[in-house]
Amino acid sequence: MVNQKDKPLFTPGPLTTSPTVKAAMSRDLGSRDTEFIGVIRDLRNSLLQLAGVSQADGWEAVLMQGSGTFSIESVISSITPPDGKWLVIMNGAYGERILKIIECHGIAAEAIRCAENELPDLVAIAAALDEGGFSHVAVVHCETTSGIMNPIAEISALVKQYGCVYFVDSMSAFGGVEFDFGASQLDCLVSSANKCVQGVPGFGFALCRRELLESTEGRARTLSLDLTAQWQGLEGNGQFRFTPPTHTLLAFAQALRELEEEGGIPARAARYRANHAACVAGMRAMGFTEFVPKNLQGHIITSFLYPTDDFDFNEFYDRLNDKGFVIYPGKVTKADCFRIGHIGHLFAEDTEALLAAIRAVVAEMNLSLEATSA
Amino acid sequence: MVNQKDKPLFTPGPLTTSPTVKAAMSRDLGSRDTEFIGVIRDLRNSLLQLAGVSQADGWEAVLMQGSGTFSIESVISSITPPDGKWLVIMNGAYGERILKIIECHGIAAEAIRCAENELPDLVAIAAALDEGGFSHVAVVHCETTSGIMNPIAEISALVKQYGCVYFVDSMSAFGGVEFDFGASQLDCLVSSANKCVQGVPGFGFALCRRELLESTEGRARTLSLDLTAQWQGLEGNGQFRFTPPTHTLLAFAQALRELEEEGGIPARAARYRANHAACVAGMRAMGFTEFVPKNLQGHIITSFLYPTDDFDFNEFYDRLNDKGFVIYPGKVTKADCFRIGHIGHLFAEDTEALLAAIRAVVAEMNLSLEATSA
Repeated sequence: MVNQKDKPLFTPGPLTTSPTVKAAMSRDLGSRDTEFIGVIRDLRNSLLQLAGVSQADGWEAVLMQGSGTFSIESVISSITPPDGKWLVIMNGAYGERILKIIECHGIAAEAIRCAENELPDLVAIAAALDEGGFSHVAVVHCETTSGIMNPIAEISALVKQYGCVYFVDSMSAFGGVEFDFGASQLDCLVSSANKCVQGVPGFGFALCRRELLESTEGRARTLSLDLTAQWQGLEGNGQFRFTPPTHTLLAFAQALRELEEEGGIPARAARYRANHAACVAGMRAMGFTEFVPKNLQGHIITSFLYPTDDFDFNEFYDRLNDKGFVIYPGKVTKADCFRIGHIGHLFAEDTEALLAAIRAVVAEMNLSLEATSA
Repeated sequence: MVNQKDKPLFTPGPLTTSPTVKAAMSRDLGSRDTEFIGVIRDLRNSLLQLAGVSQADGWEAVLMQGSGTFSIESVISSITPPDGKWLVIMNGAYGERILKIIECHGIAAEAIRCAENELPDLVAIAAALDEGGFSHVAVVHCETTSGIMNPIAEISALVKQYGCVYFVDSMSAFGGVEFDFGASQLDCLVSSANKCVQGVPGFGFALCRRELLESTEGRARTLSLDLTAQWQGLEGNGQFRFTPPTHTLLAFAQALRELEEEGGIPARAARYRANHAACVAGMRAMGFTEFVPKNLQGHIITSFLYPTDDFDFNEFYDRLNDKGFVIYPGKVTKADCFRIGHIGHLFAEDTEALLAAIRAVVAEMNLSLEATSA
């Protein structure tokens, strides 16, 4: 079982990781032992460094057990005062999830929605901020629902005019998209281990301004997801308050080293961009069409429309799976789509192999498609 | 780094796992792919089988991302109605943590405390239940704080007289202690991946009566830790609602197979009992004394009193660490202790090696001890 070649995962994560990232999990370290405390310290510093900031600049990296959603809930339920009010800017399921978390904690919120293949309307956001008495604003960076890349920097300028705390869910983008974090006016960003850093799943992290964390003590609405207490623990004795996923953290430390070796975010983003470009070109040549207009697409994941009215996605998925490729179902609400991810330990030859397999499946299924553009 | 021999962990977990459990993590599976859905299904069934129950008997296994504490918070915050009231029976830090979680959610609770090296008083529990109007009762199975084993079956009978929901935190005991789960009157038990099943950390699980889960819909106070929604997801499409720690789950599936190969819970409990007995005998021979009386000790972890008033635990710990052994600091509030765990992929020769190292450290530190009993 151990050495078998797994199918490449063209998904938004968990994704295909390098053999060396997986091998880094072959150790049992004590979660309260000196060596592991050193791993956590280095890893938190490396995360800030990756974002181009540091503790000296007033930034903190807080790690939280669970999936990325746990980290988002940790932030929202820990930083919002009882009279806080969120504006959630959304064009997909992950924006909706943020709203659901806020409402679950009985916190006031309003949403600005736009179509899943359109960018949020900055004029509407400004108008909402002008009227609403909002304390916090949230937006998703790359909406994994569709693959659209939201203009987090442009929104930032608006949010700051109104003195709101600005929170970005950069789950699927952080580490794989160039972004000037230090120059931005973000207050908090969340991502997770199994996305563009190419670790394995088991924890997420928040990069926060220290002054935000310092102002939130006692606001937490849960014990496990208390972001401030977690930060205080990590800063205090260097340990997680509750058992951390030690093996996952070792994998992540290795993944961070490999990201640096690859050339950091610019090099990784370039590889993902190439994966995305080759995939879209190949799919168009076969007659598939993207859901999001080309100029709004990110390079993380792409939603493709079902090519025919009677397209059988399950058959398409299973046939690709039989050939050794895992793709992802769609998630947008207004159109029938499937998704192909471009992130992870995947290279030009993997995308070519996927395209060849899709070509074979298209033939097997007798799909009569017509190339849309080369 | 990969093949280096790690120090054995004489801790309550994360613990030393077998090489084959760690090797099971060398795969990247898609979290929504057919193969992984099969892994989760088998794993949930195996957990029930390990407990000697089944879905046909009305039991469900629900997996939850995060540390064991996340699973406990998931249960408490998901099953308690707005007017619920908990009685928490406690003799250690993990009982206190349960109370803290209940209070964090603004749920009514009272505690019955006894000394950390004494068993809860059944007469006092009966009196409290008679007076209190409690809907839920919680107790810790093996209090890892001290290592004491609480009488969960005896308490069960009392709790059921008063029609309360009975919740047991069996974090460090489940899988390593014989217990007739099916015959008990438990409603819900929680444990985690990195304890006696000998997996790696990253998720916990609740074994619940289905009727309990069915009665709790809409009670959850968080999105991430919603036990009922998690169960409905696992039963519905067989998937986690939010990204699961795929590698950790593969390790756990392997760990469950190895537990069965060892001979199930009776064989594993026998190995742990032998580790415990050899450790206590060896430590007594050197002049160390346990905090918990012998007849109340579990075989999971043992608290030893500091042997002298000026005992330097940090030096003791570091010297043992230099010799390649990781032990655990104490956690009881009323006495200075350190702890030695007996669980994990550890055998008679490991305990002997630890004792030899401790003998050497005692000599190096010139501790003048006198054997207490052989």
